[in-house]
Amino acid sequence: VHELGAKVLEGDFRAVARACRLVDDRTSGYLDLLRDLYPHTGAAWWVGVTGGPGAGKSTLVDRLIARFRSEELRVAVVAVDPTSPFSGGAILGDRIRMQRHFQDEEVFIRSVATRGALGGLSRSAVDVARILEAWGAGVVLIETVGVGQDELEVARTAHSTLVVVSPGLGDAVQALKAGVLECADVFAVNKADRPGVDTTVRDLELMIALGSPSMANSRTSRAHSAPSVTPEKSEETSEHWVVPVVRCIATEDSGTSEVLENLKAHRRWLDSSEAGRIRRLARTREQLLGFLRDELVGELSRELEQAIDAAAEAVARRSTDPYTACERLLHEFRGGGLESS
Amino acid sequence: VHELGAKVLEGDFRAVARACRLVDDRTSGYLDLLRDLYPHTGAAWWVGVTGGPGAGKSTLVDRLIARFRSEELRVAVVAVDPTSPFSGGAILGDRIRMQRHFQDEEVFIRSVATRGALGGLSRSAVDVARILEAWGAGVVLIETVGVGQDELEVARTAHSTLVVVSPGLGDAVQALKAGVLECADVFAVNKADRPGVDTTVRDLELMIALGSPSMANSRTSRAHSAPSVTPEKSEETSEHWVVPVVRCIATEDSGTSEVLENLKAHRRWLDSSEAGRIRRLARTREQLLGFLRDELVGELSRELEQAIDAAAEAVARRSTDPYTACERLLHEFRGGGLESS
Repeated sequence: VHELGAKVLEGDFRAVARACRLVDDRTSGYLDLLRDLYPHTGAAWWVGVTGGPGAGKSTLVDRLIARFRSEELRVAVVAVDPTSPFSGGAILGDRIRMQRHFQDEEVFIRSVATRGALGGLSRSAVDVARILEAWGAGVVLIETVGVGQDELEVARTAHSTLVVVSPGLGDAVQALKAGVLECADVFAVNKADRPGVDTTVRDLELMIALGSPSMANSRTSRAHSAPSVTPEKSEETSEHWVVPVVRCIATEDSGTSEVLENLKAHRRWLDSSEAGRIRRLARTREQLLGFLRDELVGELSRELEQAIDAAAEAVARRSTDPYTACERLLHEFRGGGLESS
Repeated sequence: VHELGAKVLEGDFRAVARACRLVDDRTSGYLDLLRDLYPHTGAAWWVGVTGGPGAGKSTLVDRLIARFRSEELRVAVVAVDPTSPFSGGAILGDRIRMQRHFQDEEVFIRSVATRGALGGLSRSAVDVARILEAWGAGVVLIETVGVGQDELEVARTAHSTLVVVSPGLGDAVQALKAGVLECADVFAVNKADRPGVDTTVRDLELMIALGSPSMANSRTSRAHSAPSVTPEKSEETSEHWVVPVVRCIATEDSGTSEVLENLKAHRRWLDSSEAGRIRRLARTREQLLGFLRDELVGELSRELEQAIDAAAEAVARRSTDPYTACERLLHEFRGGGLESS
């Protein structure tokens, strides 16, 4: 493990791949590897990119990679794949679209599979991102498909999160679900040459204005009166971040530099303002809580597997109720020993 | 609480509303209420209905309610609402579409809000469903918007789950994500008069064939050679359930009786086959594990709130790494006491 860690730090491509596999599978020793590498992390910028299928997210990510590369940055992409047999095709298509970067030794693309009902997805994504930071990535793009709770949790692990929507998908904005507003730092309205783009932009700006703290605290809504805030203005003058809505056409590489500039403005805001510091801390706390939850559930499943099976049988037979069964199992897990049933 | 439980069992509408609020807020005493009512539950049929926004799910639910009502069944609807300010409008529209049932004292519609990152949504839905069972519902419709991990977890709590898709939404099938195949018992392709319906049906049938156990176990795929299995055939002759794909036009009430018949066939299959029994048990187990997870995370947050805050500060300062911090917190939680840092 120590040797593997050293090789990752040297930038050995194959060692990085092996290290990613190790942490994703949680093979024994993976925690030591992560601990070894941790002091060599912390400098990279983590950018989350999320949005529904069909919004053109992958093309935009491809453009962003190219821009980061032109700034001589090492780029890591952590792609969270839905394991559906159907979107398998979509993912493959995405990978092909990113193929030109596959040739580039300064770009590392790694998929993290979605896990079962018990979660752990965001932990895997975070651990893999850390390995890639240690490898020397200056920017880590964390890409998720969809805006479900799970994906939002992953997106929240990033410093700056871009949410990609496109007009003409019917209920594009309506489909944005709970939590997306707290999660988005920049909105990109892609395919901005399509009909309906004005409606989509207006809907998003309204949503931002409604959810904005400036709305809650005062009657004058900065977001509403000046919806297209330029990054230079907003970052210096306000304690809170006003989420910008940026139009782009990723296939033509049009508007993508504006997307990037707005993301960078968000990063500067994060680094310089007190609100940014508080937000970083809140994310660290949330991450820690997520880790704890995963570990606890893992321990629970391992230690009480048989007891849980027996309890499920008892509940199914209706010889106990799930509330009592749960209480007993918890008591046992917390070290109280199994009560007589 | 005992009095409230008694009133719920008498069918008192206002008591039911109060009980739902109590369990959804997890106000003290809610567990006792659930325990009291538990013996009076178990007979209702829980039907999950899920699908992306715009698939016409609510109209179909409205039709199903009407059909159940014509069979003189008491109907409960547990609607899981995304809390987005935007889909707020959609939800309101849904409610208005179901309004005619609001007048009906034998129909109880209750929304459950999506919760934060720590989950607990499916538990709330299950608890509310139990209250409504105790009230006397013969069928509980559990309706979720979207096919994210969270919604699928809710859908999995039902006995039979209907997934509604519609053609012409572009990537309707592609948008179906990981887990939806394991979750769907019946597919309804709504708006079947729209162009593209044949493609959508074929895509779904292919997906089912690919995921079917008969494919994995033998070279001859029943699902593939006979995709439109009539319920009468499949339920008696096969140990595993072949997910039917049913076309319908909910706005015209066309095809909705076929949707219902297929759902009923699934229920009969569940009740009569060994595979059905195993599946029920697996769901009970999963539910129990979900409860345990929620309780543990709740206890963790309550008991270690300050320690977690301190740990997050330490990680943010980089005076420790999250892996070590997590290990220490777990140790403390499991009763080991806080180690000296």
